[in-house]
Parts: sequence; C-alpha cells; structure tokens
Amino acid sequence: MSKGITSRDTDYSQWYNELVVKADLAEHSAVRGCMVIKPYGYAIWEKMQAALDQMFKDTGHSNAYFPLFIPKSFFSKEASHVEGFATECAVVTHYRLKNDGTGQIVVDEEAKLEEELIVRPTSETIIWNTYRGWIESYRDLPILVNQWANVVRWEMRTRLFLRTAEFLWQEGHTAHATREEAVEETNRMLGVYADFAENWMALPVVKGRKTENERFAGALDTLCIEALMQDGKALQAGTSHFLGQNFAKAFDVKFTAKDGKLDYVWATSWGVSTRLMGALIMAHSDDAGLVLPPKLAPIQVVIVPIYKTDEEKAGITGFADTLIAELKAQGISVRFDDRDTQRPGFKFAEWELKGVPVRIAVGARDMQNGTVEIARRDTQTKETVAQEGLAARVAGLLEDIQQHIFTKALTFRNANTVEVNTYDEFKQVLEEKGGFISAHWDGTVETEKRIKEETKATIRCIPLAGQPEDGFCMVTGKPSTQRVLFARAY
Amino acid sequence: MSKGITSRDTDYSQWYNELVVKADLAEHSAVRGCMVIKPYGYAIWEKMQAALDQMFKDTGHSNAYFPLFIPKSFFSKEASHVEGFATECAVVTHYRLKNDGTGQIVVDEEAKLEEELIVRPTSETIIWNTYRGWIESYRDLPILVNQWANVVRWEMRTRLFLRTAEFLWQEGHTAHATREEAVEETNRMLGVYADFAENWMALPVVKGRKTENERFAGALDTLCIEALMQDGKALQAGTSHFLGQNFAKAFDVKFTAKDGKLDYVWATSWGVSTRLMGALIMAHSDDAGLVLPPKLAPIQVVIVPIYKTDEEKAGITGFADTLIAELKAQGISVRFDDRDTQRPGFKFAEWELKGVPVRIAVGARDMQNGTVEIARRDTQTKETVAQEGLAARVAGLLEDIQQHIFTKALTFRNANTVEVNTYDEFKQVLEEKGGFISAHWDGTVETEKRIKEETKATIRCIPLAGQPEDGFCMVTGKPSTQRVLFARAY
Repeated sequence: MSKGITSRDTDYSQWYNELVVKADLAEHSAVRGCMVIKPYGYAIWEKMQAALDQMFKDTGHSNAYFPLFIPKSFFSKEASHVEGFATECAVVTHYRLKNDGTGQIVVDEEAKLEEELIVRPTSETIIWNTYRGWIESYRDLPILVNQWANVVRWEMRTRLFLRTAEFLWQEGHTAHATREEAVEETNRMLGVYADFAENWMALPVVKGRKTENERFAGALDTLCIEALMQDGKALQAGTSHFLGQNFAKAFDVKFTAKDGKLDYVWATSWGVSTRLMGALIMAHSDDAGLVLPPKLAPIQVVIVPIYKTDEEKAGITGFADTLIAELKAQGISVRFDDRDTQRPGFKFAEWELKGVPVRIAVGARDMQNGTVEIARRDTQTKETVAQEGLAARVAGLLEDIQQHIFTKALTFRNANTVEVNTYDEFKQVLEEKGGFISAHWDGTVETEKRIKEETKATIRCIPLAGQPEDGFCMVTGKPSTQRVLFARAY
Repeated sequence: MSKGITSRDTDYSQWYNELVVKADLAEHSAVRGCMVIKPYGYAIWEKMQAALDQMFKDTGHSNAYFPLFIPKSFFSKEASHVEGFATECAVVTHYRLKNDGTGQIVVDEEAKLEEELIVRPTSETIIWNTYRGWIESYRDLPILVNQWANVVRWEMRTRLFLRTAEFLWQEGHTAHATREEAVEETNRMLGVYADFAENWMALPVVKGRKTENERFAGALDTLCIEALMQDGKALQAGTSHFLGQNFAKAFDVKFTAKDGKLDYVWATSWGVSTRLMGALIMAHSDDAGLVLPPKLAPIQVVIVPIYKTDEEKAGITGFADTLIAELKAQGISVRFDDRDTQRPGFKFAEWELKGVPVRIAVGARDMQNGTVEIARRDTQTKETVAQEGLAARVAGLLEDIQQHIFTKALTFRNANTVEVNTYDEFKQVLEEKGGFISAHWDGTVETEKRIKEETKATIRCIPLAGQPEDGFCMVTGKPSTQRVLFARAY
C-alpha cells in the first residue's frame, strides 16, 4: 500500500521519521525546529497527560501557570543554570511591528524592550522569583505545584518528538522546609514517572542517578528513568531534580522555621515531555506501523465490516451497534470503520499503521456463523471467535496486550543489557550489539568525557537498584565500587 | 479579618483587583503584563477547560498543537489580519545569549534570525499554512481542530484575567468544503459557548453579531456572546468567526470538489480565554468574596468542625468521614477543614472569600442533637438541619445554588437592559445606570465611532434574537430596521 514505510532493519532512523508522519502523529512546521502535533498524535499525548495529571494530584500536587517570558536578568542569577541554557534561548527584543511605508511589515525599532525577555526553556527562575512572595514561614510549606506548558530550547538538529525547538511538557516545582522532605519528593516523583512508564507506556525503565557531568543545570542531584529503544540506543524518559537551596539563594527565598530561625527553602523540580511520544513509538512499533499499549491508544478497537450488498452491511451494522454499546459501557474506545470509499485491506493496513490494538472484522458468513475475526496488533495474529461474549473477550485481550507489550520490551532490554569488564569488550559490544552496558568506572569526569569522545557512549545513570561491587574502571584501572550503565543515547 | 476587601460600592475596580489576589486566583508577575495563575484560580480554569473540551469533542472536534512562533512573512499575507495584530506583537529576533566577557549575560548578535518570529497572538496564519498540506479534495474535509494554548498580545494597560499580555485560551480552526457548512459551524460553536456560559458559568449571555467595525481582523462575520457585569459594563465572553475564503486565499489552500472543480476552502475560527475567569468573578461575587457556581467550584463543600476537646474533635471527625464518603460517591468535591491553627470564624471568612458554595459547621451540641449548620454562599443564609439525609440535601442544594446564581444574574441583566429612543436618553441611562442599552442605529461606521468617542459606549452586538423593527437612528435620525445593543465594556 502507498503508506508503506521503510523497515527498521533497512534504516531505523528513516523508519521512525516516516512512521511519525505517515501514522499522522506529527509533522515539521514551517518554523525551524518546531513541530505540528496532529490530532491523532495529540490524542495519545492527551491520554498521557490525563494519566500523569491524576498521578500528580494523587500525590498532593496542584496545577498553576507561570509566564512564558523570563526577564534576562533572572537567568543570570543562578550561575550554572544560565550556563546550561544561555546558548539555546529564543530572545524577544521588540513588542511591535509596523508598516515601513512601502507595504513591508518590519520590526518597529521604537518598540525595543528595555530588558530582553527569554522564552522559557524551563521555569525555575520565574517560579522561584514568584515563590519569594508566597513563602514566609514553615506554615506556607510545602508548595507542591505543577505546570503544563510549552517551552523552547533552540536545538540545531531536531527530530520530531525527540528533539524539537518547542516542545510540550509538565514541570513540577516544589518548595520544602527541610532537605529530607525535598529529597523524598525527588524520589517520589521519580517513582511516579517509573510507574507511568511501565504501567501506562508499557516501557520498562531503569531508575538511576545522573553523574555530576550530566546533571540538570542548577541541581545538586538529578534522578532519571532510562529506557532502551529497539535499535539499542537509550532514551532518557524523565528526570527529577533535587535542587538543594540553589534557587532559594539565587532568588532570596527564606522561611521562618518552627524554631523561629530563618533558612533558605529547599527545592525540587521534575519533568517529562512530548519526548515520551518518541519513546513510545520507538520502543514498541514494528515495520507495519505503530504498536500502541491499549491504555494510551486513542482508539482501542476498530470494527471493519466486510460486505457486498446494502443488506449485508445493514446486518453487520446492527451487530456492531450492539457490540459498540457493550464495549463503551466498559470504557473501551471503539471505531466502526464503515467507509464505503475504501476496501477492507486498505482499512486493515491503515489501522495497523495507526497501532489500534484490536481489530474485529465481520463478514456476511461470520454473521451466519455467529463469529467474528479478531486480530491483535502486537503479535499480528488473528483468530475466529464466537460473537457471544465478545465484549468480555475484547476487554481481557486488551489487558493481555498491555502486559505482553511490556514483557516483550522487558525481554528485549534484558537481552540487550550486558556486563563488560574491559574497554575493548565495551567497544565491541557497543559496535556489534548496542544496548545498555554495565561497567565499572572510576567516578571522574575526565574518564566519562574520554569514553564519550572515543565511543559516543554516555553514562545513562548510576542505577538506584545497583549493588555495591568492588571492581576496577574499565578504562583507567582505578578502583570502583559500583557498576554504572552506559549506552549511546537519543 | 485581615483578608477583608474593598466593597463594590466603594470602588468596583479596586474590589475586583483585591478579590483576584486575596482569593488566591492570580497575581501580577515580574514580567510586564503577564500574570501568574495560582493553584486555586487554575483549578477553576481546569474545570472550565474540561467542560468545554468535552463539548468540543461531542461536536466532533479533535485537539492538535501548532507552533508558538509565526514567521513574520506569514503575518503579512492576510492584509486586515496583520493590520489588526501588528502593533501588539512580541518579536523574537535572536536565538542565543552569551557572556560578554565581563560576566554580563547579553544577546549574542551573531545569533540573529534571518526572519523574525512573532509569538502567536492567534494562529490562523500558521494553521492555514499547515492546512495547505492536509487538504487536497473534499474527502479531506471538514477539518475540525481545536488547540489549547498560550497566546501573547502586547497590551499596554493590563488587568488580571481581563486583559493580559499573555493569556491562555482555546482556538478552534475548521476547514470546510462549502460556505453553508462553515456558516453552520460558526453558529454551532457560538451555541456551544452560550450553553457553557449559561449552564456552567451561570452567566446569561446575549448572542449576537459584531458590527463590521468590531469584527475580528480577517473575518467576514464575527458572532459573539456578551455578558453584563455587576457594575453595568459589558464583557465579550467568546467569539466565533466566519472567515470565508480569506485565509485559504492568503495561503493558497484549494480543494477538488465532488464535481472535480478546484475551489478555495472555507474557514471558521472561534475562541474563549482566561478572560472568562474575569467574567465569572465579576458577574457573581460580592463584598465577602467570590461566589462560584457549584459546577465550576474546585471545592463544592467545606466542613468545619467546632470543638474544644480532642474527644469532641474525634467525634465530629468520625461523622465527617462518613459524610465525605457519601458526598464523594455522588461526585461532590469536599474539604474537611480541621486545621488546629485557625479559629472557626477565620475559616468561615476564608471559605467565603474563596466562594465555596456550601459550608457545613458541626459542633459538639450538633453531635448531641444529630444536626449540623448548613450555610449557602450565594445568599449567605444558614439553617440547622438533621444529619440524616444530609448528603442528598447537599446535592440538591448545589443544584439550587447553580440555578439561583444564574437566575440572579439574569434578573440583574434584565433590570439593566433598557430601550431608548433618543441620544439624550441614551447618554443619561449610560451615566446614571449603565447596563445594556437597546437603540436604533443607522448602520454606519461613522455614527458608531462618533457614539464611542462621545460616550465611550460601543455596539456590543446586533442580537441574533432581535426582531426587525422600523425606527430611526438615535443620533442621525436616519432609518434603521433593528435595534442594536450598546454598552460600555471591558
């Protein structure tokens, strides 16, 4: 069919790019590096948002909204923060256009801002400047706030969902009276992200800690979840930062503790973005198109009638109406594809491309036999089953598929996580197989950077579940007490 | 109490400004003209979003997302559109900051954009440029897309929610094969807005058509809903535009019709914004604080225990736990305010300020008598009622309050809508009473502008429900066939 896409084996990168566009998820816009998220892609993002938002609320957080623009001077207040973001900022310098008299629309130089405004790449600075007015005493703490927003980071090399100049995300920003409470929050939100990734996205993740070199600009500690894609490259799927008192000090946010003493407030921030869409696509999909976990599929079931006459179609439609009502009563989203303009084969391929988990085909003979053909997208298998009890069967099948997609991804990850003890072995695995490589490292930035330069692999994280183990750095031979996880990454 | 606010009679404008801040809805940010929407305010906005979003989906629309930035050249393509928005645009000119060597962070002049980017004030141009790639034939139509987004219009005089440089909104952008279908969509969405305003916000609105002079920049027809605030000023609460083929022509979006002929696509756009928060506040609230319609109240019921001993508190808490479970089972949101740090009187005032529709106070004597004191926020009345059957009573009361708030606002609007037949009478009513004034107008922009200059009143709309009536323009004496609605407006 015309919508066929390059296979993963032929060119994984090309497969991804084509799939995103042909499955109607997103496309490049006329604005450099910015994407258009199309309705079908946005419907998946909305499901992600709804699930995450509920999890945030269940852990005591509220949503709020802070300005898109950040005064340039705010940026300079936290030294490592500005260093991290200064080179990729969209800068607003004027607030008016005018007609130049020849019919051309030009920037009105008389409308120059006294201080430039930065389009937020992240909101720590504007939020902590605001929190100064919200916090006086320990009674005002904790503040547990999240924001759903767009942010801009001027990336030079962009890819749909994975790396775009503008992207959508949520950013949690919390304020606490004690270090312990902030650390606990940092861990809690990492747990929420891991829970979401595994139980909604069907994406197994490794929870870990970033090395100092890979930390968020301004954080004392950055925790992350790391996932493995089908091409053996890793993808950072979410981060949770313990910010210490860095931003409170930069923006002079103090509180009176129970004992009457003044102290700076402790902070966390944490975020996931539309990058998760990239992870979802690359982790599960195949050469026929998207494979979506049922919990995030905008359409969970599609029913395709196969008929020659109007009478046959009417009979099938009657059956489908009943089935749809039964499925909807169970909260299952279903589409009845009775378009006369397309043949069944075309419809099958289209819904495969779009990753609908379950397809039910019903023909005239099925109606006589009281059967349907039911196909599952993940395994691309099909069987003929009775119409009786179909809704319950579909509900069970959706759960099976959700579980199976996760198990498949986990099996893949386990098969592609190897321990190595020498640098030669490391390089060999990286070239021949990819995946996560667990190895000893001497803990220095120098060695970390050398490995990155020589192999393009980075330390994805120091796994939280990792066991202490005495060993020697595979590069320098210096002593090490725990293995860390390397990979080439998106 | 310390949170007392200026009364409406003393200074309506000051009352509004104080209420927004003291009820924790929003505050001014450090960025000129931009607001921070605080968690309590955002929770109301989320309820509005959820209701509207469902209504959009029920009428066949899907959400999508388009870039924040619009190339300057796109703006110039629709002449009246650029004229309407050019003077209030935030313009991005650079994409990088740098350290100037002295430790100062400055704009990197080497990172100047070839073409400036405008932060979207509305998205017709970027969306119609995108639709060109989505539309080939009538089979691709209609496109029924909505976007939830932030937009920026550089307002010089700003007020929280009512007029801010950045605001949140939704913008629907639809594409159709025929004029009739686009006109029908324009009307349908106006109906959705009116339905939402009246049945969720408890805000009676007049559906009408804008005069040519007040039309959206680029529209052939702008429909609107207009509401009346307590100070007698009108507020435009939502607009729905029939754009004709203007944007299709500007961006060369053609389609092949069923008969094989090429034609330009027909368009609509429609939007409501966080301005609705301002309307909600100003329409219903009183000198004690917010009055929220139950359907949009983040907390619908607050339970305040009144106790002296821990034993008394324990007894009341046991009762409250059961009640809360019963209320939640009915989908009612409830807060049990058992803070030991505040007295009941303080709590009563705080929840009044925040507009919680129903307050239940329970003391030790109530527990003995099997009663509670139940107070409704809208009328500020209270009564002692039996604990038995309380949950059902509360559910009924919430419905009553929703209805009562609407009826009260409708009665006010009716009492403040007058017909006048002379310009003197018009000016007198405007000065002494305000409100909507229904009068004959000769249909010319000149007269409309003259009235605005002389009285600051504008034509809010030509009511859709208005009856043809022969008369004479109150200013020029020229013939007129229908009364239009004037008011001073926000």
